Amino acid sequence: MAKKHNKLGIEFDKQTETNQWYTDVINKSNLIEYTKVSGCYVLRPRSQFMWDRIRDYMDKIIREKGVKNTSFPLLIPESNLTKEEDHVEGFAPEVAWVTHGGSSKLAERLAIRPTSETIMYPAFSKWVRSYTDLPLKINQWCSVVRWEFKNPTPFLRGREFHWQEGHTAFATRKDADEEAMDILINLYKKTYDDILAVPTLVGKKSDKEKFAGAEYSLSCEAFLPIGKAIQGCTSHHLGQGFAKAFDISFQDQNQETQLVHQNSWGLSTRVIGVIIMMHSDNKGLVIPPRLAENKVIIVPILKKGDNTELIEFTNKLKLDLKEFDAVADLREGISPGFKFSEAELHGYPIRVEVGMRELEEGNLTLVRRDTLEKVTVSIDDVKSNIPTMLDDIHNNLYAKANDFLKSSIVEEYSDLDKISECVKEGKIVKTYFKNNAATDELIKDLTTGKTLNIPFDETLPEGAICPFTKEPATDIVYVARSL
Amino acid sequence: MAKKHNKLGIEFDKQTETNQWYTDVINKSNLIEYTKVSGCYVLRPRSQFMWDRIRDYMDKIIREKGVKNTSFPLLIPESNLTKEEDHVEGFAPEVAWVTHGGSSKLAERLAIRPTSETIMYPAFSKWVRSYTDLPLKINQWCSVVRWEFKNPTPFLRGREFHWQEGHTAFATRKDADEEAMDILINLYKKTYDDILAVPTLVGKKSDKEKFAGAEYSLSCEAFLPIGKAIQGCTSHHLGQGFAKAFDISFQDQNQETQLVHQNSWGLSTRVIGVIIMMHSDNKGLVIPPRLAENKVIIVPILKKGDNTELIEFTNKLKLDLKEFDAVADLREGISPGFKFSEAELHGYPIRVEVGMRELEEGNLTLVRRDTLEKVTVSIDDVKSNIPTMLDDIHNNLYAKANDFLKSSIVEEYSDLDKISECVKEGKIVKTYFKNNAATDELIKDLTTGKTLNIPFDETLPEGAICPFTKEPATDIVYVARSL
Repeated sequence: MAKKHNKLGIEFDKQTETNQWYTDVINKSNLIEYTKVSGCYVLRPRSQFMWDRIRDYMDKIIREKGVKNTSFPLLIPESNLTKEEDHVEGFAPEVAWVTHGGSSKLAERLAIRPTSETIMYPAFSKWVRSYTDLPLKINQWCSVVRWEFKNPTPFLRGREFHWQEGHTAFATRKDADEEAMDILINLYKKTYDDILAVPTLVGKKSDKEKFAGAEYSLSCEAFLPIGKAIQGCTSHHLGQGFAKAFDISFQDQNQETQLVHQNSWGLSTRVIGVIIMMHSDNKGLVIPPRLAENKVIIVPILKKGDNTELIEFTNKLKLDLKEFDAVADLREGISPGFKFSEAELHGYPIRVEVGMRELEEGNLTLVRRDTLEKVTVSIDDVKSNIPTMLDDIHNNLYAKANDFLKSSIVEEYSDLDKISECVKEGKIVKTYFKNNAATDELIKDLTTGKTLNIPFDETLPEGAICPFTKEPATDIVYVARSL
Repeated sequence: MAKKHNKLGIEFDKQTETNQWYTDVINKSNLIEYTKVSGCYVLRPRSQFMWDRIRDYMDKIIREKGVKNTSFPLLIPESNLTKEEDHVEGFAPEVAWVTHGGSSKLAERLAIRPTSETIMYPAFSKWVRSYTDLPLKINQWCSVVRWEFKNPTPFLRGREFHWQEGHTAFATRKDADEEAMDILINLYKKTYDDILAVPTLVGKKSDKEKFAGAEYSLSCEAFLPIGKAIQGCTSHHLGQGFAKAFDISFQDQNQETQLVHQNSWGLSTRVIGVIIMMHSDNKGLVIPPRLAENKVIIVPILKKGDNTELIEFTNKLKLDLKEFDAVADLREGISPGFKFSEAELHGYPIRVEVGMRELEEGNLTLVRRDTLEKVTVSIDDVKSNIPTMLDDIHNNLYAKANDFLKSSIVEEYSDLDKISECVKEGKIVKTYFKNNAATDELIKDLTTGKTLNIPFDETLPEGAICPFTKEPATDIVYVARSL
């Protein structure tokens, strides 16, 4: 920590002191408050606003896909949770259990939902009778609790987090397969691209890394500037395992009884952690403009003496920029430089600076948060310039992240030392892979990384050998360090 | 049960078999699914849609009032819950307790929030330092759990329910008082009037009936056609009790330390139960039009033989009525009469009936769900007629409920027999009242009713005597049977 510290600004370096930097950013920009319960955080208004906007954006797409919102109970009887073997094995170790109501002991323990398959599917069993009841497509926005014992981190790994979970049932495997992919690309990747300004690698998780109870899981993986990947969301094809366990069957067109084919898919408040890790810098928060509540902050350069004219102008401009929810920093006795730093810390996408001399010249200065570039524009043009500048910021954030992602991918299919070295250096290695749990373990041992996912539409050459097991490869896979 | 029963329709009478009627309506119109846990229900898509629209409508008003959304943790440490004496006394008997995470016993039990004062106010204590930090106004949309042992009923009394809870802190008592009233009138009563089509009596709860930990509670009370009142929502002034318990203090303009003055206010999914009880009838659900997902259902009168022209017309009309999210019932082999009954059961505000003969004449029949009145309109005028008809339905539902409410109020200030008789008959008695817990108990004993609330802006005549205690009255109050 060689640089000069300023307690009001960020005191740590993103690349070399990532954890402290992250904590400093989310605290000083008022995104999070802590509670007495480890891993349970308060989403303060600025982060809740982001989540509400992500929800609005996604909910519209979800509804257009014919998926209906519902609310299933928070509490799941233990006997439900244990019905599907793989599922309970995956989730039981981190379930928060309710044992008492008031002073009475409950006859059966209730799990706070870690995910809702086992409370939803008994209802699915009642609702689905005939092929005409299919597809059944529901979603809910809620929070879930997973009592993890690993180091909790706000947004990225919490014991309670908010998400949407979609649950769908189809008459055919083909319909389910298609939907799992459609959700991945046209809901999740699209949200990452259009709103979060985060490019992602889409693909299939390895068998070891799939969801507990799934036949396969698809994912979006983001790659952070610190050279680590993070799983951004997942879309699972559940096959017929849950349908069997919960008896979700229907009469097909030939009057024969069939089990449904199911998917479940979720995206959580983790995405807020992803955008902070991706876009923010040593000056503080950088918010993708489409998630910023106040897209513009106006800072008038107040001098000693009479500032009436400048303050009046600022208030008028703020009103004029209402559609961008502009705010103005009119505090007295605080230097413009301090206000600029604070605006950067809080991540307003555009800062408008205006002093009396500029005002007399009919000009203003616009400062972009992403690049900190300044441009002088005529007062008359400010309003019309802002939408373009906001789009530019979004596009620049995306392009920067995408350039980094693309330049980080190294293809190495055989040399294990080189693979290991590249992973250690913070690259993503595209390589061959024999898809089973043993290989995943081997990768963790031999490199400091893990498998991210298996890209679609890649052809494995004949005779390809998995560099980890030295056995015939089954897939091409991305390997990298992971957050 | 003298009338002929039809298993597909509602089998009970609203006035004489209210409980069975209610259960029949919410089940057959697909609003609710039950789970293995008593008192925990599934909000199916049709009821979730209503709640989502109520949320949209209210959230806009809440944000316009400068209240910001947040998410506080679901789980509250026991030591937080017990900090404010009155509060814990009120809620502890119905708390669901989490005692284990995975297989580990927790060091301290965690309550699933029954309401969030005791998890929010430690954060308020951190956030409020100076008068410039006030007012602090936050809200959250979430579910809460109250492990009641009384008879649970979907929407009306559940162990888990969804709500919004606003929590605000002010520098002065006056500001807090004004906000508590503003929320009651300009948020809650307005929502009841504008969206739910339910008139309400606004007023102050008796001391006995106020929120645990509040200085006073304001409420909206609805009066159901079955002659029973139901509390619709509450806005509490908390005084400084929580501020003291959680040390929420600030430096005022004179550098003196003061405690904040607080409010909390909530409206829950109970409102869905209220609108069902208020508007629905023996044919099924009647939804206030502003809460209906599909405002129009088109039922073509299909005949044996070729229906191509009629089906084409129906599909075209459905598209034309897209802004009303019109649906069409094109099922074959089902009689028009059956379809009409089903449309009534599900509560579509407007049904469009069209047969070939009408089509040739250029006419359609519109049937209003509230009155079942039919009008014939020219095909060209259908689209332009619908918005007015939807408003008419809303206004008619409101007027009907309001006429009933107004005609149910009886003023009787002294004759205890008459008060008791009127309450038993399903009237609301406006009377004098000595406001303390003993009187409330006496009212329960002497009548079959309870106090609803104390209307605002009423002047108690000098020398007024409480008919229950025969002591000097302190207030005018509404008394009625209550759901």
